[in-house]
Amino acid sequence: MRTRAAVALEAGKPLEIMDVELEGPKEGEVLVEIKATGICHTDEFTRSGGDPEGLFPSILGHEGAGVVVEVGPGVRSLKPGDHVIPLYTAECRECEYCLNPKTNLCQAVRSTQGQGVMPDGTSRFSMPDGTKLHHYMGCSTFANHTVLPEISLAKIREDAPFDKVCYIGCGVTTGVGAVINTAKVEIGATAIVFGLGGIGLNVIQGLRLAGADRIVGVDLNPEKKVLAEKFGMTDFVNPNDVDGPLAPYLVDYTGGGGDYTFDATGNVNVMRQALESAHKGWGESIIIGVAPAGAEISTRPFQLVTGRVWKGTAFGGARGRTDVPKIVDWYMEGKIEIDPMITHTMGLDDINHGFDLMHEGKSIRSVVTY
Amino acid sequence: MRTRAAVALEAGKPLEIMDVELEGPKEGEVLVEIKATGICHTDEFTRSGGDPEGLFPSILGHEGAGVVVEVGPGVRSLKPGDHVIPLYTAECRECEYCLNPKTNLCQAVRSTQGQGVMPDGTSRFSMPDGTKLHHYMGCSTFANHTVLPEISLAKIREDAPFDKVCYIGCGVTTGVGAVINTAKVEIGATAIVFGLGGIGLNVIQGLRLAGADRIVGVDLNPEKKVLAEKFGMTDFVNPNDVDGPLAPYLVDYTGGGGDYTFDATGNVNVMRQALESAHKGWGESIIIGVAPAGAEISTRPFQLVTGRVWKGTAFGGARGRTDVPKIVDWYMEGKIEIDPMITHTMGLDDINHGFDLMHEGKSIRSVVTY
Ligand SMILES: NC(=O)c1ccc[n+]([C@@H]2O[C@H](COP(=O)([O-])OP(=O)(O)OC[C@H]3O[C@@H](n4cnc5c(N)ncnc54)[C@H](O)[C@@H]3O)[C@@H](O)[C@H]2O)c1
Ligand SMILES: NC(=O)c1ccc[n+]([C@@H]2O[C@H](COP(=O)([O-])OP(=O)(O)OC[C@H]3O[C@@H](n4cnc5c(N)ncnc54)[C@H](O)[C@@H]3O)[C@@H](O)[C@H]2O)c1
Ligand SMILES: [Zn+2]
Ligand SMILES: [Zn+2]
Ligand SMILES: [Zn+2]
Ligand SMILES: [Zn+2]
Repeated sequence: MRTRAAVALEAGKPLEIMDVELEGPKEGEVLVEIKATGICHTDEFTRSGGDPEGLFPSILGHEGAGVVVEVGPGVRSLKPGDHVIPLYTAECRECEYCLNPKTNLCQAVRSTQGQGVMPDGTSRFSMPDGTKLHHYMGCSTFANHTVLPEISLAKIREDAPFDKVCYIGCGVTTGVGAVINTAKVEIGATAIVFGLGGIGLNVIQGLRLAGADRIVGVDLNPEKKVLAEKFGMTDFVNPNDVDGPLAPYLVDYTGGGGDYTFDATGNVNVMRQALESAHKGWGESIIIGVAPAGAEISTRPFQLVTGRVWKGTAFGGARGRTDVPKIVDWYMEGKIEIDPMITHTMGLDDINHGFDLMHEGKSIRSVVTY
Repeated sequence: MRTRAAVALEAGKPLEIMDVELEGPKEGEVLVEIKATGICHTDEFTRSGGDPEGLFPSILGHEGAGVVVEVGPGVRSLKPGDHVIPLYTAECRECEYCLNPKTNLCQAVRSTQGQGVMPDGTSRFSMPDGTKLHHYMGCSTFANHTVLPEISLAKIREDAPFDKVCYIGCGVTTGVGAVINTAKVEIGATAIVFGLGGIGLNVIQGLRLAGADRIVGVDLNPEKKVLAEKFGMTDFVNPNDVDGPLAPYLVDYTGGGGDYTFDATGNVNVMRQALESAHKGWGESIIIGVAPAGAEISTRPFQLVTGRVWKGTAFGGARGRTDVPKIVDWYMEGKIEIDPMITHTMGLDDINHGFDLMHEGKSIRSVVTY
């Protein structure tokens, strides 16, 4: 079939909107009509050429929501008409990782996904001239139709609005999940969140949901304060207003440091500040941000020997098929908010404008609707 | 009173054996006759001048065992004749840290201990000419008699031999505790231990006690293999025999990496190898070694984002008054071994020889008996 897509032809170039060819679903695969997709920093990391493992030409996008159109042979958990959210972290429920309660990093389709192809080693997408296009993060939601493995789709309730819950496909789950699945924050905790963008705001609302008492937000941009307060931030610190090193200031400010601290900037210096502003004895620091290629984090080992723990999280530690439908429920029940974070909505033809807004720091989330 | 002690007069100099003056115990303090003391790397770190916070002149030693001689006013948990192990990590059971199950870093006497004095801000030790001597790590077990806070003493059973269980005052508890309290290793786990010295061997036997299936030891010194096998090591890897980077080799060798990895070398490059040879998704790496002043650990944040956890441990996460008597029981019941690790025993007059043996890599543990 033919479908409309935004294609990343080369690193560093704007996406090109065009018709592409899409083959139907093979064994264990599902054809999905994407109804809406968010634009995430990880798309930009690849588009810009910042990711040394980025593949071109490809169809980016990994934060979508849509409807099942057709299922391939052997697919049993989904049928046409089901509402779904694509998962860049699959959940096969059978691999060594899925069977280990300590991780969500299902390995079932990982290596082919990293190579930009379906599990059988081939791509379903091609350009009108026959050139093969790579899939992206197993999702490729910057196409009106896409094909995914059955295990890479979370089935969600049908009354959830696509143009909002698409954000649960990455940003919401990453931020809220970092609090709930990775840090396992307890009621009454003190937390510090570095970076109040699309991820950080979701960490903030995750902390509110988990019952944290003090939720300190840290951002260089003073305009983030008002919005973050709406999601539960209790204190705001702008590093530019602090004399001397930030970590000791925050330790002092919180009366000992954060029980939990989160990096949602992707800056390795901030990751160190986050670790070192965690509480001696028990503070845990969670890295959410994705750093530039080759960048390294550092600290003195004494920081760990005196009881701090350094962790990271991918997709908020969520098992997509199990946890994403629950987070959709939380949204529908008003436990978490999404609407105020979606600052811009546009058609696919204007997707490059969404990337511009991200660069200019004007958007929290831009969502493309088909 | 007068007692015999090995005094560190200046950084970098051998200890001087001499008679020193010791005041009796004040409120909440206990006078202990030390019967035996181990010589640990941390003593050498201070003696050599490697620790920028080291104080001189002082009486080093923190791995002792002895008998209570006299108790000061208000002491209720101990009486003359009780057998005790001094604790460089106190356990007051009342501070914010003692009341938090996530940490063993009691803060009750911490600041004065760091300043080399008793909790009232003064020292009990002086030289015959009246010069004040600093206490060390709240213990100063390189003196035949010493004074400690009541909360810095673990009461132990009376049939335990001082010249063996003194080692529980630091090395044994640090290594075994890192496994049991900090890592909480499960039955069947795969573990990798870097450094098979006085600490690493205790990690190995802690892993055996915890029921680990595969216990891989890593050391540059091939002579460590035979001894480590006696304590439960199942595989030995000498980095000098490995072509290419060590961490990927160990990941491959263990079929995915260690569920738990431990640094017991104090080398920051090894700490990185330990982290990066932990299993993707869930591997935890625990830093036990104490690094040189100013040294830093580094890695790519991707290592943490893909599920590895970086931790440290001090005194094996043990709460001394509660846990040390249990570890003494384990030794008396044959659950753990100590005797083969104590390779040398000497009188106080020969204590500098014990430091020489450590430097030459000839001893696992030298114990001084009074
Ligand atoms: N681990 C995962 O699974 C995962 C998933 C999605 C995104 N991410 C990553 O999360 C990070 C944040 O993404 P986002 O969409 O929220 O980005 P964003 O640009 O919307 O927000 C980043 C915020 O950090 C602030 N900031 C920048 N430098 C700072 C500093 N030095 N100190 C304090 N604040 C600073 C900015 O002002 C901005 O508000 C990115 O690195 C992204 O790649 C990770
Ligand atoms: N965290 C704590 O509470 C605590 C307590 C006591 C000691 N320590 C620290 O633990 C560390 C180990 O102490 P120890 O008494 O066992 O020392 P040790 O000298 O007896 O043993 C160190 C071992 O590491 C090996 N080694 C050195 N470099 C290596 C490398 N690059 N790769 C592999 N093996 C290497 C040596 O051959 C030796 O066998 C020290 O740093 C010490 O200060 C920590
Ligand atoms: Zn994303
Ligand atoms: Zn799986
Ligand atoms: Zn020691
Ligand atoms: Zn305490």
